[in-house]
Amino acid sequence: MVLSVQEMGQRAKNVTNQVAMLSLEKRNALLQEMAQALLNQQKDIIIANQKDLSEHEQTLSGPMQKRLKLNAAAIQEIANSLRAVAELPDPLAGPYDEWRTHVDLKIIKKIVPLGVVAMVFEARPNVTVDAAALTLKSGNAVILRGGKEASHSNAILAKILRQVLTNNQLNPDIIQLITDTSHESVNTLLHMRAFIDVLIPRGSAKFIDFVVANATVPVIETGAGNTHIFVDASADQEEAIRIIHNAKTQKPSVCNSAEKLLIHESIAVEFLPKIGAKLMASHVELRGDEASRQIESRILPAEDLDWDTEYNDLIMSIKIVADTDAAIDWINTHTTHHSETIISETTENVVKFMNDVDAAVVYQNASSRFTDGFEFGFGAEIGISTQKLHARGPMGLPALTTIKYEVFGDGQIRS
Amino acid sequence: MVLSVQEMGQRAKNVTNQVAMLSLEKRNALLQEMAQALLNQQKDIIIANQKDLSEHEQTLSGPMQKRLKLNAAAIQEIANSLRAVAELPDPLAGPYDEWRTHVDLKIIKKIVPLGVVAMVFEARPNVTVDAAALTLKSGNAVILRGGKEASHSNAILAKILRQVLTNNQLNPDIIQLITDTSHESVNTLLHMRAFIDVLIPRGSAKFIDFVVANATVPVIETGAGNTHIFVDASADQEEAIRIIHNAKTQKPSVCNSAEKLLIHESIAVEFLPKIGAKLMASHVELRGDEASRQIESRILPAEDLDWDTEYNDLIMSIKIVADTDAAIDWINTHTTHHSETIISETTENVVKFMNDVDAAVVYQNASSRFTDGFEFGFGAEIGISTQKLHARGPMGLPALTTIKYEVFGDGQIRS
Repeated sequence: MVLSVQEMGQRAKNVTNQVAMLSLEKRNALLQEMAQALLNQQKDIIIANQKDLSEHEQTLSGPMQKRLKLNAAAIQEIANSLRAVAELPDPLAGPYDEWRTHVDLKIIKKIVPLGVVAMVFEARPNVTVDAAALTLKSGNAVILRGGKEASHSNAILAKILRQVLTNNQLNPDIIQLITDTSHESVNTLLHMRAFIDVLIPRGSAKFIDFVVANATVPVIETGAGNTHIFVDASADQEEAIRIIHNAKTQKPSVCNSAEKLLIHESIAVEFLPKIGAKLMASHVELRGDEASRQIESRILPAEDLDWDTEYNDLIMSIKIVADTDAAIDWINTHTTHHSETIISETTENVVKFMNDVDAAVVYQNASSRFTDGFEFGFGAEIGISTQKLHARGPMGLPALTTIKYEVFGDGQIRS
Repeated sequence: MVLSVQEMGQRAKNVTNQVAMLSLEKRNALLQEMAQALLNQQKDIIIANQKDLSEHEQTLSGPMQKRLKLNAAAIQEIANSLRAVAELPDPLAGPYDEWRTHVDLKIIKKIVPLGVVAMVFEARPNVTVDAAALTLKSGNAVILRGGKEASHSNAILAKILRQVLTNNQLNPDIIQLITDTSHESVNTLLHMRAFIDVLIPRGSAKFIDFVVANATVPVIETGAGNTHIFVDASADQEEAIRIIHNAKTQKPSVCNSAEKLLIHESIAVEFLPKIGAKLMASHVELRGDEASRQIESRILPAEDLDWDTEYNDLIMSIKIVADTDAAIDWINTHTTHHSETIISETTENVVKFMNDVDAAVVYQNASSRFTDGFEFGFGAEIGISTQKLHARGPMGLPALTTIKYEVFGDGQIRS
């Protein structure tokens, strides 16, 4: 029986109290059991995944196929990550704030699950399991909606996880997968205010913009990154070259890689040829403003649109700026509020940059590739929030919780 | 010169760094000066307010006129509340979390202002000053949009506050008032994602629903309250009567007053006539289900719509329920997630109610009228959030802040 998205919402809401009340020990045991179940059934997973791969062979790019593919090693990695989530501390644990008011009411500020979390994502079946693990660990019910390219893979993964819930006399609707991969199913999700406590979209900037513009359910925006590096006059230039090269080329497809390079005008003539040569040697296409092109003629002219584009590719646009203030103004006009970097040895400029740049993460003298829940030491990552409400920057398990005030009285009334 | 709402958004964004960098001492001194300036210019305020009152004499109800009216006592109260905000602790103060990562990056998790806060509210000119004070204290720029009935009052209040900023060599656009009271100005606000970090609507449930359904800027929902009281079989009935009477009648126009009464069936025959008589003696109109009407014939029949209506008036609907589970189910179906109460001496039922009812504040044996930032001890209240993200329940100054990660390296790159 295929349920409607509305019915799935109702079912998720109905199980929120059951999953919220599971002890930490029980949640962790379930995660361990799920890891084992995936390993035990890896043959079936690989068969389903082959079906996805062959159905979409013609339409998927090489990197997309690679992300979609599940072999024994990939399944082992997914199982490991489930076990790692089991090892994390309980996001629902206290100590809770507790106080007495002027009329002697006792108030406890508890940490509680959000309730029903919806996640919409693209063709990466590992996200199905990751999202289920993180929401279960934090006491939430989850509704998953993956991309159509991974539909067979997602279906078997969800089936295996749900079977573990059933085997433990729990309602399997704690984890639900929407198998309808039409746009309509996403649209329904975006408006189910009665059932969904938060929706987390993961995907292209365009998709996330669509969700933000259309959703009436609460949304946490994730992931768009048009990140800048500003090289100040006082920068250690060798260090700057290492950092820029790493931030641009180590994994250009992700949101925390660098897209734009701003160079202080007083060092541009010296520095730009060096960093230009280093980047071009790694096949980075350089675009730039007029001033940069006068210094390095192999730089292509940047269009207006370049300054607001997240390339996710081996492309970088370069601009010469007058000083730290000009760099800050430029960044605040074009930032996606994700991660921004200054390379400088001048404390005054660093302090100003850190204070005035409006981004979740601001760096001095390090690669922005560290904007990541694991690198930050959170042990998990639901995504990287580029909004300011609720969660900002890399989100660990606490982003999947909220608070509740329990108030205990003995007849207090308001006068 | 009248600025467009867009221009005001741009101006607010431009001053965010100036206001964010003000020291606590400076912010507090400004608030004290603003309090004094309002008192010094109370004659002008009263003249402007008289103009509002006479222009809307025909259309405003008695209570609305009362809320709109500013006399010397009301202005003194507004000045006092400015001074009280100056006395509050700094919401931007640390201690900040700080740690070193596995590659020895130093990360500081700072508390920072949200940036630009927009507040849309109805005909209460004191909100103009309150909102400006709370946003200034938390280092934010604010865009205020009050109701047309208070437009002369709001204009002079904003002018006085802005003059204090100017006198202190600060940009007055830290506090801006939209004087265009058309629907169009609200609509523009709802979509200014480039300039507005959060919009807080205060007003009727219908208005807040409109904002949530239409806004693309981040919103904090406030205020809708369809609050229930469940009287369990073990309740201290005298205490229950005191609490219900207080929660229903002490100030029926506000969101934390009680609207619905659920009574355990085993005590209904004994309890309902007592509470019914008490409420009717205070002119409360009672509506109820069939079971309640068989016990007390003066109860009018409740329609389906009653169970989802926030009356904000001397009306209460009553339902007889089988037990705590039935009460919880009923509440979770009809709650606005604001404040819900159990009156019971049975620990097991209280624990279950507190865990399973999905509301910002859950009470045992006390009046829900205590859901209030001042009563909670926060010293301020921006509103009462009925959403789960970012802030839940009464919101003090921390609701107007977010975090920012500052990361300090010495050349770290990702491998």
